[in-house]
Amino acid sequence: MSVTTPAGFEAAGVAAGLKSSGALDLALVVNRGPRRAAAAVFTSNRAQANPIIWSRQVIADGEVAAIVLNSGGANCFTGAQGFQTTHATAEAVAEQLDVSAGDVLVCSTGLIGEQLDRSALLSGVAAAAGALGPHGDDAARAIMTTDSVPKTVVVEGPGYTIGGMAKGAGMLAPGLATMLAVLTTDADLPAAELDRALRIATRVSFDRLDSDGCMSTNDQVTLMASGASGVSPELDAFAQLLVDACVLLMLQLQADAEGASHDIRIEVTGAVTEADAVEVARSVARSNLFKAAMFGNDPNWGRVLAAIGTTSAQFDPYAVDVSFNNVRLCHAGAPDRSRDEVDLRDRAITVHIELHAGSEQATIYTNDLTHDYVHENSAYAS
Amino acid sequence: MSVTTPAGFEAAGVAAGLKSSGALDLALVVNRGPRRAAAAVFTSNRAQANPIIWSRQVIADGEVAAIVLNSGGANCFTGAQGFQTTHATAEAVAEQLDVSAGDVLVCSTGLIGEQLDRSALLSGVAAAAGALGPHGDDAARAIMTTDSVPKTVVVEGPGYTIGGMAKGAGMLAPGLATMLAVLTTDADLPAAELDRALRIATRVSFDRLDSDGCMSTNDQVTLMASGASGVSPELDAFAQLLVDACVLLMLQLQADAEGASHDIRIEVTGAVTEADAVEVARSVARSNLFKAAMFGNDPNWGRVLAAIGTTSAQFDPYAVDVSFNNVRLCHAGAPDRSRDEVDLRDRAITVHIELHAGSEQATIYTNDLTHDYVHENSAYAS
Repeated sequence: MSVTTPAGFEAAGVAAGLKSSGALDLALVVNRGPRRAAAAVFTSNRAQANPIIWSRQVIADGEVAAIVLNSGGANCFTGAQGFQTTHATAEAVAEQLDVSAGDVLVCSTGLIGEQLDRSALLSGVAAAAGALGPHGDDAARAIMTTDSVPKTVVVEGPGYTIGGMAKGAGMLAPGLATMLAVLTTDADLPAAELDRALRIATRVSFDRLDSDGCMSTNDQVTLMASGASGVSPELDAFAQLLVDACVLLMLQLQADAEGASHDIRIEVTGAVTEADAVEVARSVARSNLFKAAMFGNDPNWGRVLAAIGTTSAQFDPYAVDVSFNNVRLCHAGAPDRSRDEVDLRDRAITVHIELHAGSEQATIYTNDLTHDYVHENSAYAS
Repeated sequence: MSVTTPAGFEAAGVAAGLKSSGALDLALVVNRGPRRAAAAVFTSNRAQANPIIWSRQVIADGEVAAIVLNSGGANCFTGAQGFQTTHATAEAVAEQLDVSAGDVLVCSTGLIGEQLDRSALLSGVAAAAGALGPHGDDAARAIMTTDSVPKTVVVEGPGYTIGGMAKGAGMLAPGLATMLAVLTTDADLPAAELDRALRIATRVSFDRLDSDGCMSTNDQVTLMASGASGVSPELDAFAQLLVDACVLLMLQLQADAEGASHDIRIEVTGAVTEADAVEVARSVARSNLFKAAMFGNDPNWGRVLAAIGTTSAQFDPYAVDVSFNNVRLCHAGAPDRSRDEVDLRDRAITVHIELHAGSEQATIYTNDLTHDYVHENSAYAS
């Protein structure tokens, strides 16, 4: 049930006619309380969609009654008409639920630069409001674009639950947040603590996913708390459980990335700072030559070193070790064991880079560059 | 004849056996004087090949007698043995030509992390020294890796000539220099002026090419002047002619980029600074989603705005205009003319981004992301 597993939440997923396929394309998640605390993080892309501009205002007071999400169109760079569509959507939800439009978050995903069909959208809102129930799975399906499977999660804490759903298969490289994700909990926590927990969790989950280096204009991760469990957990414990939920969703996004044939963990250790480790790992995740080599099951460590040499992180390129699936191919800047000892045919690949410069570390999750990625992104306009 | 067109230069290209195909793989270019002034720029990648480490020392005094270049192996991350191979190569050239090894530049290109066959290399040096003559075309062929055609240029100034050759088809994203290029001139200019002219020229030519976002470990652009024309041109005029030569070589590199089906000019105007214009254009050149859309002949301007929104350049994303082949599809952050009016089937594509923030501009040259790029870089280890 995902977002409707925690007590206090109802959801629906309906077909509003925004997708030409007739598939589910509008999701509504409602917090029935007793509390309506919420937090959200947004894309750091300066090119921001109308729903992002709207939702930034809504979240300011930490109170959210409902979130409405549509696929079938990003409503980004659609001018005043597009912003009015977002506003009208929030007003329609507010009217249906008898709440304030200022407590309704809006998310959109799909093609940039095209107007949404406003009347279809508003009819869909009415249909969704009439279909509310324990339908988290329908909601998770309704936010899919090129996703091949819905992504949901449920984790259990002592006396409370966190549920979640996410979508995202392309433009997968977060700034602060990434893609669309909605997390719900029946824990009783104020908005400020939800915000702190959400930033802790997104920093080490969604923010560490870099599938194709392209940052979306519509990314939003929202956490809503109903307080319906009556349990007020310690922030640290809650944040750790939220990390688990976000990592589990992030791994589902990685596994379903457009056209990918490998899920790649790039582990950097021995860094002077965590930021250095992230920068080094991300430089590899963004190297098309590295990613194409992974597609070819070629443990091409030279492309790893060529990538990390472009960073400003503190390390000596001639002191670095590089391993593929635990076989060390490069030691101290020279060839070590034979490439032939590495088998990269499994979907999961781990690349380990030991910088020998300090004691900090980080992992970035990425995918390979494949014919299918090129095909999907040259044939599909998103 | 390329590098041997200017008076005072001889060259050779031979098959030393470094390439398993038996193709030409070793080039030697010799400056017979009377002057031996030279300048060079190198990759800004911190992961630097042994020939780069060697050549940085050689160029320090501004005097170069010869440059020897091999394909068939990058000699990068090959440890002490690899550095000794570079050193031995320079010594062998010096012995053959009766010059100092400290005046011999070395360049290598090919797979990173594999030892070169030193004895084959040294035999090749002897063969090349015995074959010296007006053989610039052989030299240009001997430095090819995945290049499908040799790249050469000759431009004429008043009383003097500039010739050049270059190689590069992948890892095409320069820091300071890019790929391998050798330029020769019979103009009479001191090393300091050559250095100034070379930096002026590379900044607006090779440095503006960003085919695949991957910076090489072996990039080097060298300019050698023999003074044999007896003409000492004004620096500004010489630098402008050198710009022309470098741009003509750079466009040949773009046209032969691995797997590319489109040559794309990304023109940014209305920037506050030239650096802003470069940053904005480069962000588009590095967007895999944009590049895949170009492969699909899809004028997806939303992906352009999503890319430039990640930069720190000064502009308002909602004031930007985007045109494809002179058809303005986005005006002031909203849809303008129909995508259907744009025909992207020609190999050449121009994307124009008007930021409406200032009066500076820059152009970046890139390519599309194709099935052939993925194929070549997953099947070929470089």
